[in-house]
Amino acid sequence: MSLYLTVLGCSSATPTATRHPSAFLLKSDRMRSLILIDCGEGTQMRLRQKGICMQKVAHVFISHLHGDHFFGLMGFILSQSLLGRKTPLHIYAHKPLEKLINLSLSIDKTILQYPLVFHAIKKKSAIIYQDSFIEVSTFPLLHSLLAHGFLFKEKGHPFSPKLEFIANYRPSREQIDKVKMGEDFITDNGTIVKNELIATRVTNLKSFAYCSDTVFYPKIVKNIKGVDLLYHEATFMNDLSEAAANKFHSTTIQAAQIAKMAEVKKLLIGHFSARYKDIGLLAEEARSVFPNTYTAIEGGTIKA
Amino acid sequence: MSLYLTVLGCSSATPTATRHPSAFLLKSDRMRSLILIDCGEGTQMRLRQKGICMQKVAHVFISHLHGDHFFGLMGFILSQSLLGRKTPLHIYAHKPLEKLINLSLSIDKTILQYPLVFHAIKKKSAIIYQDSFIEVSTFPLLHSLLAHGFLFKEKGHPFSPKLEFIANYRPSREQIDKVKMGEDFITDNGTIVKNELIATRVTNLKSFAYCSDTVFYPKIVKNIKGVDLLYHEATFMNDLSEAAANKFHSTTIQAAQIAKMAEVKKLLIGHFSARYKDIGLLAEEARSVFPNTYTAIEGGTIKA
Repeated sequence: MSLYLTVLGCSSATPTATRHPSAFLLKSDRMRSLILIDCGEGTQMRLRQKGICMQKVAHVFISHLHGDHFFGLMGFILSQSLLGRKTPLHIYAHKPLEKLINLSLSIDKTILQYPLVFHAIKKKSAIIYQDSFIEVSTFPLLHSLLAHGFLFKEKGHPFSPKLEFIANYRPSREQIDKVKMGEDFITDNGTIVKNELIATRVTNLKSFAYCSDTVFYPKIVKNIKGVDLLYHEATFMNDLSEAAANKFHSTTIQAAQIAKMAEVKKLLIGHFSARYKDIGLLAEEARSVFPNTYTAIEGGTIKA
Repeated sequence: MSLYLTVLGCSSATPTATRHPSAFLLKSDRMRSLILIDCGEGTQMRLRQKGICMQKVAHVFISHLHGDHFFGLMGFILSQSLLGRKTPLHIYAHKPLEKLINLSLSIDKTILQYPLVFHAIKKKSAIIYQDSFIEVSTFPLLHSLLAHGFLFKEKGHPFSPKLEFIANYRPSREQIDKVKMGEDFITDNGTIVKNELIATRVTNLKSFAYCSDTVFYPKIVKNIKGVDLLYHEATFMNDLSEAAANKFHSTTIQAAQIAKMAEVKKLLIGHFSARYKDIGLLAEEARSVFPNTYTAIEGGTIKA
């Protein structure tokens, strides 16, 4: 199984001619719906440009209420009503955003043609969503505004039935589900077939952690320990570490230090300051601390 | 003198992969500052892509409060504070937008580093801005939400002194200003030189009218009579005139009829429905009624 993260925007607060404000699309092999993480201005156009159907997005997670992380949300919400969406859209964000959404809708005089469900993110770490395929939890970041990171963990049955078991025994759906949960199989004549003979343990469930925006904050290490993919903001290069601290942002080196401490498999850096025309050097700096670092590329997809 | 209109977005409510929500930039030969008309999502990025400095925009006119005409405004406002703008930015829009701007700023916890001045547009036609170079007035459109058109008229002295007058008489700034207003020139020895001998009447002051969004509404003809350039929405082609009427939008043919009735010099159509992948046919239809019709092109500039 795999998680795929598509970068829709990797600029910091002021976008550039080539980099858009924060927005990321998360897809799992196992899920039909898509997840949007942050929704900076222009997200709906970015999805259109990538040929991605907005209506497949069922859940939107907003990390914090700085405009560059959510100014695309109202357009994203309203366009889908015009396009005939009927399925619910779930928004997970800090409470004040609900008031802003409602005021925007009342000014526009729009009655949405689909259910919009707002879930307020609380200050304390919590599981805020789960289904059969994924679990999403929050953890506090340290920024100039209340901000949370998100941990996405694929879920699944702990055992996967072998193909020859299916072919030989023709089990029912219920029997398969029991085997997936680790139970032995009982044939029609009462013979017990041990689970270990007919199933293998599932070991490839993936995890992804999203940390933006935040100052260098080692407290998050326990929350993101060992994830397959970590997105950590790296607004500045190392020579501007003082500016980073003052603005509650991180540097390339700090993002890499967090990745190293958390022993993650892969690091993706983004949220680059508009001052960097050439972002090639940022990953190079991070790689000096954490070699498996990737640079966020507009429109590019990375696998967890 | 000339007015130049740059199309930053010509889609209707739902943007496409290649067309952005409504936003237009107006420039005059005579003005140092720029004017923004509507500010759909992504406007700040569109300006960056065109290499236009946002801080040169002194006035923003918002036609009505459907999101596709103003969802780019908050990003436009906030980015400029981060970029160090100090000069005032004037917003002309319907009253409810002021509340939304203030709520957005309070959620973002931003204290703007420059003066933001909000001017509420009233229901009745009015001159809402004027300086030495331009006069801007409103007139009501007919849409599903309170909407106004804008008329931009270049202003100037009615007479332009001839170069040989300047060379021969070496007049003072005050004397030049008097001649520009049509007065005769009096030499040091008291000789009266007739204005008609030393100045020519200025005839090339341009005008531009912006009409979006509106149903076919001939009442506006008196407001836009004889303008050099008319932008009129043409959301639909003629076969969808019923849908246009129901949604308080216009068709290509209706936009052209308004242009013809108002005897404008040039018509620019835009605000195209996302259903039209190929917008070539829209101008062709309009040209059957009003030959001097142009199609709005993303990033393209048209001269009044």
